Amino acid sequence: MNFIRKIVTQSSKGDDEVFYNAMRNLLEFTPKKIIYYQKAFTHRSLKKVNDKGEPFNYERLEFLGDAMLGSVIASYLYKKVPGESEGYLTQMRSKIVSREHLNELGKDLNLISFVKSNIAEDNIGDNIHGNIFEALIGAIYLDKGYNYCNKFIYDKVIIPYVDIPKLEGKITSYKGLIIEWCQKQKKKYYIETYEDTGNEAIKHFSVKISIDGVQIAKGRATSKKKAEEQASKRVYYSFQDQIENT
Amino acid sequence: MNFIRKIVTQSSKGDDEVFYNAMRNLLEFTPKKIIYYQKAFTHRSLKKVNDKGEPFNYERLEFLGDAMLGSVIASYLYKKVPGESEGYLTQMRSKIVSREHLNELGKDLNLISFVKSNIAEDNIGDNIHGNIFEALIGAIYLDKGYNYCNKFIYDKVIIPYVDIPKLEGKITSYKGLIIEWCQKQKKKYYIETYEDTGNEAIKHFSVKISIDGVQIAKGRATSKKKAEEQASKRVYYSFQDQIENT
Repeated sequence: MNFIRKIVTQSSKGDDEVFYNAMRNLLEFTPKKIIYYQKAFTHRSLKKVNDKGEPFNYERLEFLGDAMLGSVIASYLYKKVPGESEGYLTQMRSKIVSREHLNELGKDLNLISFVKSNIAEDNIGDNIHGNIFEALIGAIYLDKGYNYCNKFIYDKVIIPYVDIPKLEGKITSYKGLIIEWCQKQKKKYYIETYEDTGNEAIKHFSVKISIDGVQIAKGRATSKKKAEEQASKRVYYSFQDQIENT
Repeated sequence: MNFIRKIVTQSSKGDDEVFYNAMRNLLEFTPKKIIYYQKAFTHRSLKKVNDKGEPFNYERLEFLGDAMLGSVIASYLYKKVPGESEGYLTQMRSKIVSREHLNELGKDLNLISFVKSNIAEDNIGDNIHGNIFEALIGAIYLDKGYNYCNKFIYDKVIIPYVDIPKLEGKITSYKGLIIEWCQKQKKKYYIETYEDTGNEAIKHFSVKISIDGVQIAKGRATSKKKAEEQASKRVYYSFQDQIENT
């Protein structure tokens, strides 16, 4: 397995370069101290320690990243929904930073492919995806400070995933909403979903949605459902005024 | 009462200036948008709203400040105690940001004197001290950004109050430790404690500690015990190597 191979070759020079380049691509900035990111992807099963004998794995970084994520999301929500109560803000934040949601984020970024561990991927449990996502945030904070950390969370969490009406439960499915609206309005809709993995290691799906013969939006994600929701949400925002007034 | 008087005169021009100057003294920087601080000290009992009809009180700022405090303390602990586990960091942070501790911090800064409320101070409950302390942190974040917020928390929380050995329960009383050490070492100690309120509204106490006739440290706080602990802790750090090797 890919996962095991990485452990075996971890000390080679070539692998360090591959890791550095992969981080630069993932982070969309140049890391200063790569060691923080190496730590963020090291599982405790390797029993690594640093030169002071302190444990070298992602668990402490996870604590730090969790706190940074909490404060960035709090600030986002505070500004985004000015009319809602403290209780509402707390509840919305819990939904955004739920274990389930963080695992999904970690999986979508395929962070597991960078993890060095002595445990086979299949046996490591699902929470590792969210845990290393948090650890990565901690590493960014240490390496580049709060503002980079803030930007990373906006780019990777808030912009692509945070959807207030959906989190509020007002909209449970954008696809369902679009279909219902089209039926009511006697519009013809066509949703085309197909596998579109390209060169990536993880299976991906693409979706195109047309209304009355005109293509309105596309989506692409790691599951059919997610890709369809993404495209449907884009259709929703294209017709928001019309949809909300029907 | 002082508290009630402030409500009555809240709209006068003079009071705004008094508030602005008091904030500048408290914050040790010049506030940009005073409205954030006004909000941080407005209790919901006033039922104030802004021009958009949104509630104008400290509750949402408290949510924001709590998150900022959590991330600053997480970062401090991560760097301060490099050898300890994630579980340890979580536990230490809980102690530092406990309701009890935040209430104490808020009281020591006498934040209640700025609060505008329709409820008499005696009936408002003890948690208001910690709540407005958090709201104030939220206001600083909105007004001046993360770095000011970080500095304020260092100056007002971490430097004066955070004491890792004491939080770990290794040292429960610095005064007791100093007395015990002096007795073992056959040193004469003299702890002088006296009321020293000066021009302040709240009662204060000062402490001087001498060992073998030489004054080693002073302390000043809102209770005898706190002032004595503060001075004793300073003595501890002056003789740390000798104390730890006995």
